[in-house]
Amino acid sequence: MRKWRRTLATLSFGAAVGASAGHLWRPSGGEEGLQPVFPLGPVPSVHAASELTLSRSSGGAVMKYGFPSLSNIRTRESYVSSYDPRTRTPAWVIERLSGDTLGGAADRACCDFKEDDSVHFYHRATNADYKGSGLDRGHMAAAANHKWSQKAMDDTFYLSNVAPQNPHLNQNAWNNLEKLCRSLTKRYANVYVCTGPLYLPRQEADGKLYVRYQVVGRNHVAVPTHFFKVLILERGGAQEGVELRSYVLPNEAVDQKMPLERFLVPIETIERASGLLFVPNIVRASGTIAAK
Amino acid sequence: MRKWRRTLATLSFGAAVGASAGHLWRPSGGEEGLQPVFPLGPVPSVHAASELTLSRSSGGAVMKYGFPSLSNIRTRESYVSSYDPRTRTPAWVIERLSGDTLGGAADRACCDFKEDDSVHFYHRATNADYKGSGLDRGHMAAAANHKWSQKAMDDTFYLSNVAPQNPHLNQNAWNNLEKLCRSLTKRYANVYVCTGPLYLPRQEADGKLYVRYQVVGRNHVAVPTHFFKVLILERGGAQEGVELRSYVLPNEAVDQKMPLERFLVPIETIERASGLLFVPNIVRASGTIAAK
Repeated sequence: MRKWRRTLATLSFGAAVGASAGHLWRPSGGEEGLQPVFPLGPVPSVHAASELTLSRSSGGAVMKYGFPSLSNIRTRESYVSSYDPRTRTPAWVIERLSGDTLGGAADRACCDFKEDDSVHFYHRATNADYKGSGLDRGHMAAAANHKWSQKAMDDTFYLSNVAPQNPHLNQNAWNNLEKLCRSLTKRYANVYVCTGPLYLPRQEADGKLYVRYQVVGRNHVAVPTHFFKVLILERGGAQEGVELRSYVLPNEAVDQKMPLERFLVPIETIERASGLLFVPNIVRASGTIAAK
Repeated sequence: MRKWRRTLATLSFGAAVGASAGHLWRPSGGEEGLQPVFPLGPVPSVHAASELTLSRSSGGAVMKYGFPSLSNIRTRESYVSSYDPRTRTPAWVIERLSGDTLGGAADRACCDFKEDDSVHFYHRATNADYKGSGLDRGHMAAAANHKWSQKAMDDTFYLSNVAPQNPHLNQNAWNNLEKLCRSLTKRYANVYVCTGPLYLPRQEADGKLYVRYQVVGRNHVAVPTHFFKVLILERGGAQEGVELRSYVLPNEAVDQKMPLERFLVPIETIERASGLLFVPNIVRASGTIAAK
């Protein structure tokens, strides 16, 4: 084992990937081989604002691995989120999945997308904003992750947990990624999932880099260019340890035959592009950080 | 006097202006006629996080009229700011100008732009990012506002108080707006100035609205499409009262012969586009809110 450091090389790679979204889709090598493992030392207790627990969960606090940012935090039955009032979408949403929260009788047919009236109406997305846009109301915390409680599933339908998403992506590759997250609860004691939008620059004809994204509806809800999912996979029992996987998918039709590991990126890519930080929090929560 | 309300009409206007930046540059009528006046009732005491004072100021706390947002707050000698780690620029910067803080011996020649190492290096702008971009390092809190202390002036040179700005704008119309802010200290006891970037959408050929902005340098520092200044003008003595003026200028060459009142916009326009809130804080700080 060697100490896992952020070298200038990884930084350069992060910057390069940020500079050209196309680089994100290169095969990133063997899935397992790329994933740093974070052996758990004595787990420090989680204090104060991080002490947010799910009502039916006993295995850990949702925010055990910290807050990627501290802006406009909202705590729901099924997730904790940070809202971005400028884009009218979440900046990130974190949920905790485990075997005992995936089952249950909650029914999606009972749920309707709803405005979040905890957000000022200047900065709030409405159903009308999405209507006629040709875009889905894409869940960040997925409804199907929270069958364990009707309230938990209902809460995923707040439009503050939603961003405009290409329908093909939402219903195919993105749905497969959500299924993968759920399936990982068979191998890991807890699966922490952080999901959010990205606005990545592209080089235009003048050789300069531009961020360009559509806004929809009267409230100008931003249409992200990409979405990320950061998975913190917590082993149980004798195999104690934490693994990290981070995915970025473009907000466009993606052939679902393409293996999801093609969308794995270094965590630094997401940290740089989103303005969020994950790794320092994980280090704080789990002690040392090392790679296989 | 009539109660000043945010009617559906003003909201529609706000949305319309947001939708088309071109609307911002229409003459907005008589400058004074448009400005709501906020008569001060008994001024409530300012508590807790808002209790941030300038070392040489005695007339009021910088944050008397509240925080437009609570993200990544930094307190400097001359201003309080909220940093946006995704754009690598401030979201807003607030300073308080008064007659007794404008004079002094601080020398700009002693100041150099510097990285803000309180920002994680993934999200930090550097001088190298600006080099060769053709853009100025545009101060949000202006250096010339803080001659009262070398430290106060030095602090305006943190790159976390800076955004990429069109050089012609910076050196002409924007400079004139900064001078106007200073000159208003002759008529008002305190001039609170909140400055920040905007990213306004424009309609493209397909009829849809897009936000598009350049990013510069290795760290992808965002180039705002526009800048705002919100002025809270506090009367003194017998004429007690608070007036509000809000300006939006495009980040491009602006003919400085164009009167600055042409760039006045309703505060709602800035509140909607920036994701920030000003008016609720002012109401909390000053009691009732009414227009002439």
